[in-house]
Amino acid sequence: MKIVRLLYKKEELWGILKNNHINTVRNHPYQRIRLTSKQILFKKVKLLAPTIPTKIILAGLNYKDHARELKMKIPKEPVIFLKPPTTIVGHNEAIVYPEGVKRLDYEAELAVVIKKRARNISARNAKKYILGYTCLNDVTARDLQKKDGQWTRAKSFDTFCPIGPWVETDFNPEKANIKLYVNGKLKQDSCTSNFIFSVDYLVSFISKVMTLLPGDVISSGTPAGVGPLKKHNIVEVEIKGIGRLRNKII
Amino acid sequence: MKIVRLLYKKEELWGILKNNHINTVRNHPYQRIRLTSKQILFKKVKLLAPTIPTKIILAGLNYKDHARELKMKIPKEPVIFLKPPTTIVGHNEAIVYPEGVKRLDYEAELAVVIKKRARNISARNAKKYILGYTCLNDVTARDLQKKDGQWTRAKSFDTFCPIGPWVETDFNPEKANIKLYVNGKLKQDSCTSNFIFSVDYLVSFISKVMTLLPGDVISSGTPAGVGPLKKHNIVEVEIKGIGRLRNKII
Repeated sequence: MKIVRLLYKKEELWGILKNNHINTVRNHPYQRIRLTSKQILFKKVKLLAPTIPTKIILAGLNYKDHARELKMKIPKEPVIFLKPPTTIVGHNEAIVYPEGVKRLDYEAELAVVIKKRARNISARNAKKYILGYTCLNDVTARDLQKKDGQWTRAKSFDTFCPIGPWVETDFNPEKANIKLYVNGKLKQDSCTSNFIFSVDYLVSFISKVMTLLPGDVISSGTPAGVGPLKKHNIVEVEIKGIGRLRNKII
Repeated sequence: MKIVRLLYKKEELWGILKNNHINTVRNHPYQRIRLTSKQILFKKVKLLAPTIPTKIILAGLNYKDHARELKMKIPKEPVIFLKPPTTIVGHNEAIVYPEGVKRLDYEAELAVVIKKRARNISARNAKKYILGYTCLNDVTARDLQKKDGQWTRAKSFDTFCPIGPWVETDFNPEKANIKLYVNGKLKQDSCTSNFIFSVDYLVSFISKVMTLLPGDVISSGTPAGVGPLKKHNIVEVEIKGIGRLRNKII
């Protein structure tokens, strides 16, 4: 099932996408999905980011291929960081290249959307707390990341967290192909079987630090092949079994 | 004027504290304060954290005395980091010592609460976007901060951001005495005249990265004298002209 958030006739709605139609749902879809009788043609809507998180938590180094590329040791524990909710944009929305930034990088990631309040849960139980999966681009001002040491500023500019196009509930995060394209050219190409820490482990690990709330986003790190973006580039994150998230740099 | 958020007869309310009474206000007080006719005795309420932020942004090293203590150079730009909203607790609420943490530290800070949407504003205009000031304790698992390199996990446990007791609107952040006590014993004692970056500069700097929203919190760093907390300690942050924020470690 594909959960979408959309703008239709100036109204923000949630819905379920099936073939070329969206069936709208009452309220937010984090827990029970209650369909309305309203159907809208997919091509008539503007998609919005498919969740409204109170927090976005990302894992650093989490692909074996990326660790090899960086000549770094496989970490024993995840390193986590946050992006503020103001970084979020949806499918086809613009990523704004900030003035003064010298190098802007893409990072294709698989992200999880949290279904219900999770505090101190085990990896074995994590799936019960996951609503579904989506594509995420952890846009990063690489020069500021190096300069600051702390990653927050480099990753926190408005529009630096494209997610979407939707949340896919029927998805196996263990062996999914993940790709990133810049202007149609393949730049990242890996598989989540290269994960150092599974999605379930990450959700459990983070829930032992902070209470996760419905709609919160956890992102699982980027594979090898990160690189720069320029103004006017089209960047796309594609995860097999989910879809393709497309954004333009302006 | 002292803006409070409170629990009274199971209802969450906002109000203005004057002498021993709270005059409640309609809706949130971030923009226009509209008083109701309801007055409540201060001693009959439980105070809550005096804002509900969408994000909490903190500055690292920002006191000259703390830089000297750490033998660090005076930075040319602020280093910023985030705490998730789930870290917030109010006056007299408990700070929970997490299992497995080996060293838990206090950090007394002066925090700003944002009044209205701020994007790319100048330091000269910053005051227009500030609702008021409050005390904040940037509780930190020092062992995890060193281990991770990134500060996020160490500073993101639930209850690690006590703020309050209220938001003071009539306050001069330029020459305010700031103190921290553990079990009544003075541990930090400085003045905001030791700031490397003024509050107005910090608000401006951060607004050039991310859009600030009503209720958001910006904290201005801690002075010299940081140190450890143990279970059952009482920790208090006192800022002259604001008040004293008290929390117990459990």
